Amino acid sequence: MPLSRPRTKLHPTALIHPLGENQDELEPPRSPSKISAGCERCRRPSAPSPKRMENKVFMSFAFYSTILILKMYVVAIITGQVRLRKKAFANPEDALRNGGLQYYREDPDVERCRRAHRNDMENIFPFLFLGAIYSLLDPSPAVARIHFFIFCVGRIVHTIAYLLRLKAPTRSVAYSVAQLPCFSMALQILLATTPYW
Amino acid sequence: MPLSRPRTKLHPTALIHPLGENQDELEPPRSPSKISAGCERCRRPSAPSPKRMENKVFMSFAFYSTILILKMYVVAIITGQVRLRKKAFANPEDALRNGGLQYYREDPDVERCRRAHRNDMENIFPFLFLGAIYSLLDPSPAVARIHFFIFCVGRIVHTIAYLLRLKAPTRSVAYSVAQLPCFSMALQILLATTPYW
Amino acid sequence: MPLSRPRTKLHPTALIHPLGENQDELEPPRSPSKISAGCERCRRPSAPSPKRMENKVFMSFAFYSTILILKMYVVAIITGQVRLRKKAFANPEDALRNGGLQYYREDPDVERCRRAHRNDMENIFPFLFLGAIYSLLDPSPAVARIHFFIFCVGRIVHTIAYLLRLKAPTRSVAYSVAQLPCFSMALQILLATTPYW
Repeated sequence: MPLSRPRTKLHPTALIHPLGENQDELEPPRSPSKISAGCERCRRPSAPSPKRMENKVFMSFAFYSTILILKMYVVAIITGQVRLRKKAFANPEDALRNGGLQYYREDPDVERCRRAHRNDMENIFPFLFLGAIYSLLDPSPAVARIHFFIFCVGRIVHTIAYLLRLKAPTRSVAYSVAQLPCFSMALQILLATTPYW
Repeated sequence: MPLSRPRTKLHPTALIHPLGENQDELEPPRSPSKISAGCERCRRPSAPSPKRMENKVFMSFAFYSTILILKMYVVAIITGQVRLRKKAFANPEDALRNGGLQYYREDPDVERCRRAHRNDMENIFPFLFLGAIYSLLDPSPAVARIHFFIFCVGRIVHTIAYLLRLKAPTRSVAYSVAQLPCFSMALQILLATTPYW
Repeated sequence: MPLSRPRTKLHPTALIHPLGENQDELEPPRSPSKISAGCERCRRPSAPSPKRMENKVFMSFAFYSTILILKMYVVAIITGQVRLRKKAFANPEDALRNGGLQYYREDPDVERCRRAHRNDMENIFPFLFLGAIYSLLDPSPAVARIHFFIFCVGRIVHTIAYLLRLKAPTRSVAYSVAQLPCFSMALQILLATTPYW
């Protein structure tokens, strides 16, 4: 594999081992009797591979993505708690179980939680896709991690600013900052895939 | 590949063959004239691989995920049918085509369908991500299938409970049960990827 | 790899190189001293692989998907612009920063943008999943591209019809046309994965 390979090409081991680090595991097991000694050596390289670094990009992406999904689950749990505390239920059957039909109503605090959750869906779900494809484009691990980190922090600040009603424009700034790595990743994906449209 | 490999490492063939089962297909075709006989044999192993089992995890995940996406499409179709039956349209142009502007209005049954659909987005879309990453972590096929099955059944019961207004807390119990495999998968992904944050 | 392989089997290089095209990159680098000349040749095939074509399916999918995600970002930006122009903000803190609490209100144009965005989430996000799995099922590149192209054009027309209030049933026809490749891909995934449920 030439070192001069353009960055927009897929790093193959990034996909073969997006979550692993042992290059030794690349090959499937074979029945030893079928393998000549020469092939055995070339198929089970014991030298550390310089490509191990790149696999970390997908690992890093999976880490930040899962943190953000858990963050969304927390917003869902908070929404449920606010519904119980403010006695504002979305369905008559829920209200009946919690005091009566008069609690089948909207509440501004509940709506706020729902807006935060919806904004997460509008922005975190696309990141899950863009980040996965971008991780396969052999990006620099340091640059990729910066992308993921900025998005993750931006979205956590966005949720805090939303739920705690922080003064504008805190929330919109957090939203805009988090969009920067998304646009960057989308652009890099387009650059790599446009020849194949 | 040693059997003592920790579970948090990626099973390589799980990613190389997430949807296939023929280890024979691992290598790309080469022009025969370039290959020595010894290499030919080691590259085209005919012995069954013990790793075939693991590939089924991703197949199983793809099956349950697609079922749930089709379930969401059904909710969308039901929403459209309820809109036509109750004559409650979200847009003036739709109302005009279906009897007049007075039908540009909200309806509790339509809103119920929309809430069910939105709840699906909030929970099924994260599962599509968590399940895919989890499938690459070399989980036990039996345990993985239990994760997917519980989530799938939980979400189907959730939709039925929502649309048929089943008595509380049927719907919330279905929601909570479906979240258990999601939290389990998220935890396992974090355990595997935290070193790479 | 026999040419008679059923279509429902994964094309291995489609996953190993979903975004790349150089079969030469399949193998990880090894220390040269460990490799016999015969193995070197069989591991670095220089002949063009007939499988390169298939990798383009995933590239093509990534291209159309990213276009659609950018389209969704455009809808989000339009929503923000309409909020500023019509002075209709979803949060009191936003209204306070833009003229006063009286602008914390709903607006039909803003709601229209939000419905368009929500419909995108309901339909484009499932496509991101179905298209990725479908791309790994070794579909015909031409047929796959037709799937992606129809969906992409359908969703762009849907957004234009929504935001410009085109006469019904333009929008619903665009929605229905875009669903056809999704149902087709879902069906093909189920056919391939049902044995592994």
